[in-house]
Amino acid sequence: MVDPLMASVSSISERTRVRRSPDKQHTDRAVLDAVLDANVVAHVGLADDSGMPFVLPCAYARDGDRILLHGSTASRMFRRLADGAATCIAVTTLDAMVVARSAFESSMHYRSAMVFGHCAPITDDDDHLNALRLITEHLLPGRWKEVRNSHAKELKATSVVAMPIAEWSVKISDGEPDDAVEDIASDTWAGILPIDSTWGQPRPANNLRTGLAVPASVTALVGQRVDGRHPDERSPR
Amino acid sequence: MVDPLMASVSSISERTRVRRSPDKQHTDRAVLDAVLDANVVAHVGLADDSGMPFVLPCAYARDGDRILLHGSTASRMFRRLADGAATCIAVTTLDAMVVARSAFESSMHYRSAMVFGHCAPITDDDDHLNALRLITEHLLPGRWKEVRNSHAKELKATSVVAMPIAEWSVKISDGEPDDAVEDIASDTWAGILPIDSTWGQPRPANNLRTGLAVPASVTALVGQRVDGRHPDERSPR
Repeated sequence: MVDPLMASVSSISERTRVRRSPDKQHTDRAVLDAVLDANVVAHVGLADDSGMPFVLPCAYARDGDRILLHGSTASRMFRRLADGAATCIAVTTLDAMVVARSAFESSMHYRSAMVFGHCAPITDDDDHLNALRLITEHLLPGRWKEVRNSHAKELKATSVVAMPIAEWSVKISDGEPDDAVEDIASDTWAGILPIDSTWGQPRPANNLRTGLAVPASVTALVGQRVDGRHPDERSPR
Repeated sequence: MVDPLMASVSSISERTRVRRSPDKQHTDRAVLDAVLDANVVAHVGLADDSGMPFVLPCAYARDGDRILLHGSTASRMFRRLADGAATCIAVTTLDAMVVARSAFESSMHYRSAMVFGHCAPITDDDDHLNALRLITEHLLPGRWKEVRNSHAKELKATSVVAMPIAEWSVKISDGEPDDAVEDIASDTWAGILPIDSTWGQPRPANNLRTGLAVPASVTALVGQRVDGRHPDERSPR
């Protein structure tokens, strides 16, 4: 669906220029930020020693001009990220199915971002703690203040790395089915079938003490779109 | 969140063995198939000539013991896939947020599959056409018979590659918040906040001819879960 490719640095490089469907490419940094901020899990790509790529789902948060990722200090993947391996962070939100009049023209509505580069470990204690706060708050706004302070051993067990947002590509597909004139004249239906992703009803933990109410952070999300947009709001084009 | 890693072939190789949270790893092929069949877009990772990884969202379908991907014949990514570059196909479904009593234990419920290997182009005409049918039907069952036959130039413009399902890893997180005893005794709420992803109401194309009814393929999906499971059904553990 998405098709950028190959070679060098900064927005619209040879690597990030979309070759096909260039009309879907956005170069406005605000659009990138909106795509990154609307999702909760990134797919992080990096290669092992043999050159085999790995693609791992990973919680993240955008912090201004960098993307934060966190994981176990013991994880080989996080050690590799911290070592500055070449990395691609992909964030994709699926919005709808495009039901065209031919199989060929059928596709998806999506918002897709790719950020290329190298991560560096966050070693400063304050920066590290703040990064963990941002990742927690990105997933569940308001939660940080509802939970106890992190223990020193938890902080030590958690690696945070940051990738600067420097070389990136954003592609948004939100158009009408692009059928040929003769297909439009046919009896075949065409349209858009949206995907509605919302936060459902919270279920208390099996071992929850009695009398504890669902906290404000969770209540605020129930029934809301996972991508944080109002249901009537369209893609950020 | 997911953390398998590094080196060699077939289910539970050094590369696919999950090091941390091994309780989340599944080695039953039926579980892999269920995870692959429940999603509509894969994240495909491969590297460019400089070794920079690319992670691209891509429509796919499982066909028995292989995964089919399709894209433009003109796409550099698809030429690279067809050339047999080392490739990782990741399929991730997010099911819920795990709201634990600490930031450290908070996480997600997910079903995550990774398949490693090398793709080969599908060049046989019948196999090619059948692969396109399977990809169309995976996204929108019943659609293939509702649309016209593909034109020869459309078939020529569409590259299909297949990766054998040989080396793979599946990790499923669907458990309770894993809080420490002293946290369970605290006043902090914990629980599961599910993600409900469903197909919404279809919107006709702006240029749709009057009098054309929404087809059976689309009607059958409206209100259904995107992952194809019944709302009351739990993860395939």
